[in-house]
Amino acid sequence: MKFVENALGRHVPVEIEGRELIPYKGAFTDPISKMARRKYANPIPKSHPEWLTGESKLCKNLEDAVKRSGLSNGMTISFHHHLRNGDYVVNMVLNVCDKLGIKDLTIAPSALFPIHKPVIDYIRNGVVRNIHGSMNGPVGKFVSYGGLPGTAVLRTHGGRVRAIEDGDLKIDVAFIAAPCADDYGNANGVYGPSACGPLAYSYVDAMYADKVVIVTDNLVEYPCLPISIPSTHVDYVGIVDKIGDPEGIVSGTLRITRSPTRLYIANLAAKFIRESPYYKNNMSFQTGAGGISLAITKDLGEFMEQDGIKASFINGGITKFSVELFKRGLVRKLLDGQVFDPVAIKSFRDDLWHQETPMTMYANIHSKGCLVNRQDIGFLGATEVDLDFNVNVNTHSDGLLLHGIGGHTDVAAGAKLAMIVIPSYRKRIPVLRKRVTTVTTPGETIDVIVTELGIAINPLRKDLIEHFKNSKLPISSIEDIYSDVMKIVGGEPEEPKLKERIIALIEYRDGTIIDVVRQVEGQYN
Amino acid sequence: MKFVENALGRHVPVEIEGRELIPYKGAFTDPISKMARRKYANPIPKSHPEWLTGESKLCKNLEDAVKRSGLSNGMTISFHHHLRNGDYVVNMVLNVCDKLGIKDLTIAPSALFPIHKPVIDYIRNGVVRNIHGSMNGPVGKFVSYGGLPGTAVLRTHGGRVRAIEDGDLKIDVAFIAAPCADDYGNANGVYGPSACGPLAYSYVDAMYADKVVIVTDNLVEYPCLPISIPSTHVDYVGIVDKIGDPEGIVSGTLRITRSPTRLYIANLAAKFIRESPYYKNNMSFQTGAGGISLAITKDLGEFMEQDGIKASFINGGITKFSVELFKRGLVRKLLDGQVFDPVAIKSFRDDLWHQETPMTMYANIHSKGCLVNRQDIGFLGATEVDLDFNVNVNTHSDGLLLHGIGGHTDVAAGAKLAMIVIPSYRKRIPVLRKRVTTVTTPGETIDVIVTELGIAINPLRKDLIEHFKNSKLPISSIEDIYSDVMKIVGGEPEEPKLKERIIALIEYRDGTIIDVVRQVEGQYN
Repeated sequence: MKFVENALGRHVPVEIEGRELIPYKGAFTDPISKMARRKYANPIPKSHPEWLTGESKLCKNLEDAVKRSGLSNGMTISFHHHLRNGDYVVNMVLNVCDKLGIKDLTIAPSALFPIHKPVIDYIRNGVVRNIHGSMNGPVGKFVSYGGLPGTAVLRTHGGRVRAIEDGDLKIDVAFIAAPCADDYGNANGVYGPSACGPLAYSYVDAMYADKVVIVTDNLVEYPCLPISIPSTHVDYVGIVDKIGDPEGIVSGTLRITRSPTRLYIANLAAKFIRESPYYKNNMSFQTGAGGISLAITKDLGEFMEQDGIKASFINGGITKFSVELFKRGLVRKLLDGQVFDPVAIKSFRDDLWHQETPMTMYANIHSKGCLVNRQDIGFLGATEVDLDFNVNVNTHSDGLLLHGIGGHTDVAAGAKLAMIVIPSYRKRIPVLRKRVTTVTTPGETIDVIVTELGIAINPLRKDLIEHFKNSKLPISSIEDIYSDVMKIVGGEPEEPKLKERIIALIEYRDGTIIDVVRQVEGQYN
Repeated sequence: MKFVENALGRHVPVEIEGRELIPYKGAFTDPISKMARRKYANPIPKSHPEWLTGESKLCKNLEDAVKRSGLSNGMTISFHHHLRNGDYVVNMVLNVCDKLGIKDLTIAPSALFPIHKPVIDYIRNGVVRNIHGSMNGPVGKFVSYGGLPGTAVLRTHGGRVRAIEDGDLKIDVAFIAAPCADDYGNANGVYGPSACGPLAYSYVDAMYADKVVIVTDNLVEYPCLPISIPSTHVDYVGIVDKIGDPEGIVSGTLRITRSPTRLYIANLAAKFIRESPYYKNNMSFQTGAGGISLAITKDLGEFMEQDGIKASFINGGITKFSVELFKRGLVRKLLDGQVFDPVAIKSFRDDLWHQETPMTMYANIHSKGCLVNRQDIGFLGATEVDLDFNVNVNTHSDGLLLHGIGGHTDVAAGAKLAMIVIPSYRKRIPVLRKRVTTVTTPGETIDVIVTELGIAINPLRKDLIEHFKNSKLPISSIEDIYSDVMKIVGGEPEEPKLKERIIALIEYRDGTIIDVVRQVEGQYN
């Protein structure tokens, strides 16, 4: 296998499994866009007589839908993760494939969760050969120990839609879990027992997959409104008893962190934003559902109220905390790729200025301008960051691949103020490292790192350093914070024990390879 | 020029200007879908550094936008017609092209109106060489007399989106008039002095044109919501003083016909619907803005109220009369490609179950199922119909091409009950003919013709004939009605005086050629 050193000094292969790879060349170089390539072109659908006469697309059951889709050995099937850890559809579809004797599939979920642990069995018995998509938890661990025959590919939310639109990830059959759908395939996520809000991750699958199967447990009268997924792109509708477990889909208990250290870090981040040049009327920011992120959202809201600042929009994962800012008039618009709780679903359904943003709109670098490019502030997490401000969100220091990328890299590149907000160590393992185990997001796109030991501004941001030079905030250098962490935890952790074999590629949002993940020694258990 | 006879016995060329043509083979044969062709693939956009950093796409003015779009001789540019007879944008863009010395353009408007009469000057001076699109009024007349160097192509609403998606109509630069837009290109039609409702005709242009220019007179704060046209597909935003004349965009005076004959015809049509098997709960129908159509809508609404019938949805052009049925709970949902008055705009903007339907959703035969396929009832007009139930909506009996197709052919093919509702003659010229001057919509897709002289059911619809055999409605045969009309008007009108030259092709919704329009003898004046 031939390797080259990419722009971050990481050794990446130039080819894997017959696929030519382009090494990462810098955060804004975007080499594919200079190749005069065209996007993927769908086949012109053969006009089913049924379609012409408006016949129902209902199948007898999921098995019937799989059969009619023409799914066969070696194909690629896709899923979305709006049902998160409550999703039943991935496992159900693979069960049907197993039953039908279909082998060697590549699955392309936008993300897998612990509930998808049965995927491991389908890898073991040959139904699944490869995974293009994020793996949170057990499947990632299994893959880390070399359990997957193929080489997995991890992409950002924006990178996944880019890959599909550009034809790098060709989907034969998309299975779209839909909390609400009609018999012609129009679908949304806002009504029904498995309501999840937007279906934004799957829009690109519907647009580009050769065959599209809607899987629903809530068939409604045609035409199902609002239309997140349009009938124009749906081949079949399969009814199942339940597409998911509401407990795992939405959280009734989203909670701001209670850790005093994390509350302190969140408050530091909010204060940094307040002092920054981006804190002004019409600013925009992104929120997440993590404990620190929720705390920042709350603190920031309080500052905005005190200071009479009104934001233009919140981008991204929407929670009841974002909705509260919206309802109080502190934020005018909510742009929504994913929601996390029933309050957010209700607002998404009913409020005209709370709108769905398909992933190409959210973060596709090969669009003509997406939301993250227009976002002022983003606060993000990490498993590790290093002295070059590179960020790892995928692996732990032991080398295990346990997390997906989400929109991390996209937001970092797009937001004018991209902040990593993290404790400097977790369970005596430093989060701040000399060199991250895996680079997910390049340091040149990270502006600030906020920890309980201080705030480090990226030296590339001379303007910000100048702006904060008289600040009373604990602004420090990344090296000083690093040295403080090392004193606390007693040094760098052991290097992970890795084998030669590459088990996953980390693809930058522009389609280049920013890093690889190698197999961890030992056995999955 | 080589000709073949198509399935309707019309002689159509097999090639024009280097473009291979497929003769019409029947309403549901759809030969292109059997060719295993792929849809058009857009170039992957070159990542502007401006886009990556979220810079504004605002141009200094429209001229600057045209220049930056790279528009040059021989290219194809497109427009939508949501501003109808109030649109300023077509003329303004052509004026700029003229000023910049750009020649030989093909313009691809979804439709032209009398306000676009200046297009004639731009044809004469060489700026415009050809037209792919509907021509209502003077431009059509000018083209009829041979004024256009190229051979025009007329398509249905669904056929236009098919042609663009399939790559038969390649648009270099789309100019999208937007009543409301932000500096990044997100646009809608619901706010501002030129509000027009949906921008549904132009969605496909935005998706498939190589360059997209938003032309607006109402720049709003980013992000402009709702998003009818997304920034992800917009290259430039050009600001002008006014994109249109509100008087021509919306009608404050939509009026039900006052002609007793037409009221009688409308009432007959409503009664026919009431007696038909399609008149039941959850039925769906399409309404238009013409005087007869409005009268049917009103009568049908009264019947529904009396009979306790509630419809599922109204498809298509929405007026205050449709909104009234919606508000009274007689119709649950409005699916909207175009609105005609301020009441409809307001409902479109505010009502969650009044939603925009891009044209591929409305009527694209090369989608996996569009709205017209799901529609029960459609009532449509005609300039002529003939004994084979073929319909002409494009030309008059003198051969002049004065009207576009709209969704006529799409609805006829899709609706389970496709009705032509017409007076049997106009100004002593029979509407009912032995053979229509031009076939727009094939007779096999027309179920019923309603005139003041009687109702003719297509003999192909044996089921309907059986259903109505005991009806007290004046059901007759097309031949009998024809013979009655002939008695009144004194016979068929003179054959039009035509030259050999084909000035326009009439393309069926599946991309085949259903008829041609030949040059009329004489001079345009």
